[in-house]
Amino acid sequence: MSKIRVGVAGYGTIGQRLADGVALQGDMELVGVADLAPTLAVRALYEKGMPYDLYLVAGADRSGFDALGIPVSGTFEELVDKVDIMLDSSPGGIGAKNKELYKAKGVKAIFQGGESNSVADVFFHGYANYEKGVGKDYLKLTSCNTTGLIRAADCLDRAYGLDRVAITIIRRVADPGDYHRGLTNALQMDKAPSHQALDLMTIMPHVKATGILVHTPVTHGHIITVVASGKKKITKEMALEAFEKHPRIRVVRIDDGFLGNASLFKYARDLGNPRGDMYEIGLWEDSIVESGDDIMFAVHIPQESVTIPETMDGIRAACSMQKTGAEATAKTNEYLKIGCFKKR
Amino acid sequence: MSKIRVGVAGYGTIGQRLADGVALQGDMELVGVADLAPTLAVRALYEKGMPYDLYLVAGADRSGFDALGIPVSGTFEELVDKVDIMLDSSPGGIGAKNKELYKAKGVKAIFQGGESNSVADVFFHGYANYEKGVGKDYLKLTSCNTTGLIRAADCLDRAYGLDRVAITIIRRVADPGDYHRGLTNALQMDKAPSHQALDLMTIMPHVKATGILVHTPVTHGHIITVVASGKKKITKEMALEAFEKHPRIRVVRIDDGFLGNASLFKYARDLGNPRGDMYEIGLWEDSIVESGDDIMFAVHIPQESVTIPETMDGIRAACSMQKTGAEATAKTNEYLKIGCFKKR
Amino acid sequence: MSKIRVGVAGYGTIGQRLADGVALQGDMELVGVADLAPTLAVRALYEKGMPYDLYLVAGADRSGFDALGIPVSGTFEELVDKVDIMLDSSPGGIGAKNKELYKAKGVKAIFQGGESNSVADVFFHGYANYEKGVGKDYLKLTSCNTTGLIRAADCLDRAYGLDRVAITIIRRVADPGDYHRGLTNALQMDKAPSHQALDLMTIMPHVKATGILVHTPVTHGHIITVVASGKKKITKEMALEAFEKHPRIRVVRIDDGFLGNASLFKYARDLGNPRGDMYEIGLWEDSIVESGDDIMFAVHIPQESVTIPETMDGIRAACSMQKTGAEATAKTNEYLKIGCFKKR
Amino acid sequence: MSKIRVGVAGYGTIGQRLADGVALQGDMELVGVADLAPTLAVRALYEKGMPYDLYLVAGADRSGFDALGIPVSGTFEELVDKVDIMLDSSPGGIGAKNKELYKAKGVKAIFQGGESNSVADVFFHGYANYEKGVGKDYLKLTSCNTTGLIRAADCLDRAYGLDRVAITIIRRVADPGDYHRGLTNALQMDKAPSHQALDLMTIMPHVKATGILVHTPVTHGHIITVVASGKKKITKEMALEAFEKHPRIRVVRIDDGFLGNASLFKYARDLGNPRGDMYEIGLWEDSIVESGDDIMFAVHIPQESVTIPETMDGIRAACSMQKTGAEATAKTNEYLKIGCFKKR
Repeated sequence: MSKIRVGVAGYGTIGQRLADGVALQGDMELVGVADLAPTLAVRALYEKGMPYDLYLVAGADRSGFDALGIPVSGTFEELVDKVDIMLDSSPGGIGAKNKELYKAKGVKAIFQGGESNSVADVFFHGYANYEKGVGKDYLKLTSCNTTGLIRAADCLDRAYGLDRVAITIIRRVADPGDYHRGLTNALQMDKAPSHQALDLMTIMPHVKATGILVHTPVTHGHIITVVASGKKKITKEMALEAFEKHPRIRVVRIDDGFLGNASLFKYARDLGNPRGDMYEIGLWEDSIVESGDDIMFAVHIPQESVTIPETMDGIRAACSMQKTGAEATAKTNEYLKIGCFKKR
Repeated sequence: MSKIRVGVAGYGTIGQRLADGVALQGDMELVGVADLAPTLAVRALYEKGMPYDLYLVAGADRSGFDALGIPVSGTFEELVDKVDIMLDSSPGGIGAKNKELYKAKGVKAIFQGGESNSVADVFFHGYANYEKGVGKDYLKLTSCNTTGLIRAADCLDRAYGLDRVAITIIRRVADPGDYHRGLTNALQMDKAPSHQALDLMTIMPHVKATGILVHTPVTHGHIITVVASGKKKITKEMALEAFEKHPRIRVVRIDDGFLGNASLFKYARDLGNPRGDMYEIGLWEDSIVESGDDIMFAVHIPQESVTIPETMDGIRAACSMQKTGAEATAKTNEYLKIGCFKKR
Repeated sequence: MSKIRVGVAGYGTIGQRLADGVALQGDMELVGVADLAPTLAVRALYEKGMPYDLYLVAGADRSGFDALGIPVSGTFEELVDKVDIMLDSSPGGIGAKNKELYKAKGVKAIFQGGESNSVADVFFHGYANYEKGVGKDYLKLTSCNTTGLIRAADCLDRAYGLDRVAITIIRRVADPGDYHRGLTNALQMDKAPSHQALDLMTIMPHVKATGILVHTPVTHGHIITVVASGKKKITKEMALEAFEKHPRIRVVRIDDGFLGNASLFKYARDLGNPRGDMYEIGLWEDSIVESGDDIMFAVHIPQESVTIPETMDGIRAACSMQKTGAEATAKTNEYLKIGCFKKR
Repeated sequence: MSKIRVGVAGYGTIGQRLADGVALQGDMELVGVADLAPTLAVRALYEKGMPYDLYLVAGADRSGFDALGIPVSGTFEELVDKVDIMLDSSPGGIGAKNKELYKAKGVKAIFQGGESNSVADVFFHGYANYEKGVGKDYLKLTSCNTTGLIRAADCLDRAYGLDRVAITIIRRVADPGDYHRGLTNALQMDKAPSHQALDLMTIMPHVKATGILVHTPVTHGHIITVVASGKKKITKEMALEAFEKHPRIRVVRIDDGFLGNASLFKYARDLGNPRGDMYEIGLWEDSIVESGDDIMFAVHIPQESVTIPETMDGIRAACSMQKTGAEATAKTNEYLKIGCFKKR
């Protein structure tokens, strides 16, 4: 089987990581990436020697790229012509517009969390509803918080059956390097219920979910506390056993030095992971407590990179590369080297 | 009945506010405050014209005060000789030592959250267990988070009966003006269950509690989310009705401009409250959501001032000024002008 | 002489403080304040019992105020009709529009830093160019950083003659309670030279100024370092002597507990200053160092309140209440109780 | 010539980067690293498959490593036996103790900024005083701020002659992942003059330096503003020309997207640099302004990695690998790929 040809629209925080993720998949080929302006991300691509071909979206001023000596491989339309599927991580709203081109060209696409659900045929998560995405033309990925949250919820659900979750999202407010948004010395409330709880119910309709989101002035990953009600009582030991088996969940301990969200970022940097990224969510063993028959725990969501594996799963689904989520996530994990240390 | 004579040991963040609180009680007399060194708080007292008499604890170097022209009224022992009860807000551990002097002098005392529970006869909260403190010699106040949390939990418990709470504490890590502690761009985990959950069970033994605490790099008040299980289902309307009646709970709304913890601080400043303090906890109406039969909501805990009213209640209990919590908290609220706007 | 009648347009962070400042001036009368919506500041005014009359600007929806029971005294135009001078702290750009009304009504006005210089006859500072504002109809106040910086620069200039300053502004990025702007874990550069240096040269044209501004994610006051070149060498002792005499400069020391900007905010809160505000700039004695013939030092600018005294000076100038800056600033200082502790 | 054998004591933030730096030098061999406990850094080394051999310092509990399956290659003493030179990045004070062992074994050493100057024969900087370190046994590296500052100062000094600098250090208070130190919503003053100014004068004794340091609650790099007085006037063009030629200075512009310190960190991550590190200091072209005959500018100091190249230079000096700073820094730059993009 020839490799699936993939393009990336929007070479920003997510787009760069999608491109890197595709480049690591042995059964996919990254055809190129598209953007509008010589942003820092594009300049870094150039300084690295153009490992990926760059295409310009409509409205881009080519002379700006030429002046810097940055090679351009063609237009966005030319990129779309060469691929089987586009990963669209354009700014919110642009993806819906791009979809017209994708349709016209008969190219599949996966949209990121910023687009409205209506842009896609299926609101997708690699573990929780892979089969729904198989063969579909347009998928939308869950947002970073929802992606990570569902990994943990789906993990308990598959092992023991889940009825209900009540979540508290302690949301990092900006990414490292962001200046266009930020918060200084304040915790900011969103109206409850949080959209992540509603999104979870869309993907896992048999589970009831609600929750409160509080923005915090930090950049290194969200922390979510979950109060989960199982179909039967889930003990700490049962929860831990299930979490430890999940390739995309990394169980950590405070005593080992994982004191908070910044520890996981530092650890990923020290691992040599590109950009200090982590594909796994962190889950603190020391946070797991029983509340009557409910189980409570805290997870860490690395917002810049957590959706990359599930997006790779999405390519596998849309392009019918694997029939089941089990096969697809195993392939993605293998190529991204997720969970391999755990198995040593 | 003559006024109860009160002294304050430790003129720091809490001690200053305790002194101000006592000075406002029509049936109490603030005899004086004691400290060790000419700190900024003591310098401010002096710049204000010495509204309170200052006594020096053992180990203080009087010449430092003399050099600055700060008048000293005597020794700590002399202060203790003049009072019926001491409010001890010394640094953690010192209160236990001071207790020896209080015992020798036959003086009652109320210790703040930093001391171990064993220092006191009763671990005290003005609403939840006032009657246990009546006539006792040594009380220990709940810490700031526990004090505020119990207000809300006790409120629901009295109205509808409470079985269980699972809390997420988003803890502000320092007070405005703190440099000796702090956190920069990180969320830090504590091992679960949090001590606040355990403390709640000590005060309200018929309720099961657990929870997770996450430190955040902000200074203007903790936010706690609570998932509460009632003896019967508590709806959003039922919860709101109970919260709105509570004098020490201020129900606020995001649409009114209360966007987060810093809004409440700003509002208290604009109200002209001394130091921008707020005695009430804030409770976001927009945060109240039902989770199956459980009810979930978020409260704001103004860490510097929230324990002041309950400490005034404690004086009333220890000195047998009122027999019931209802009478005592009403007196405290009247003198501190708590809940009076709500009633207009 | 009858009292000068003053109105305030825009009851926000600055407007509230301008109103309070005017209310303290024995020779002025605060006629009222005007705003558009029942913001938190307006709600606090109401909860305090309406110490100031409230007028509604064009576009305000009166029904929103009525629904909350907030009394309204009339329209903006009616307010302007009753005053001699308006203090305009409307959002940037609105002041220029309001000026048309002021002109039509023959009412003087003082605009805050957000307006362009062209809105006014004189760009004004109470110490540095009072005489230029005497009798003028329209003044514009320097911004918070420039106001504080000029206090220190003018102080050295009057004492010893100043040739040149090179400043580094470490700018707090938001006020306590701000959510609409903020910065998270980043220092942000502005293009040099900073506008504050250019503004200084407009007010003090015989001094050359340049500088660099860096935004920092804190809320409690800017810190500016100044490298000042005198007409002759200014020693540390000479600088300190001049600074200590200035009523609106508070010389502080690290060893006394003034560790940084948050210490000054805490101290002002503990002083009982409304909102924890400070009218003086702080100047660290421990920061003063000689660099060859230049002198270097650091000042603290309390951004919310620093311009209030100079705006009171501006009323005195525009309304010809005093002929000289010396007389005017002395009056303002007396009513605001600035510098009185120093003189004890 | 056989490769110089190098060991690293202390595998923390600096130690990890020193090891990586040595491993990249074609004429050096990294023999191993030593530490005390299975910290996160050591766990990451293990998870990466032990690219470097690990030795245990005295006091280490080997059973803790064994339990985790982390291979240990021997004792600290055994490591010292195998090397020509040790890079000592132990916690402050330990290096002085280790020096006894180094002396006994006849092994050279380079100490990091935390040790007192007296531990070394020469206080060293690769550009400013390389020749003083040639053949010496014990060098001490300048601290991160001083290392970066001297690059810029020495650059101007060599090009045009420098008389005097007055610096303002806006110091990041913690590294990403730090919890043991931190600051929350405050700017904190140090007493002037800052030690970095004094250190600069030790290395460049013909230049007068003073300065003020302010701590800020961020993690991604210090920013220093410099007011420099040349022997003759240095214009903006002259300064820029010199800076652009320096391999270890990266001239950046706000308009290109380099908005502040976090942009440089993000850019380094996007470049694929291990850990998102940058060896160069950033220098904003838009910050360069003339102040009379002085020149003012702002530089960015990546605190975790900036000293690595100069430490490599130090090995070259101590081991007499090159005779001049020009040759040595060129070798270091070649192996670390510093400045190679600039030359394209």
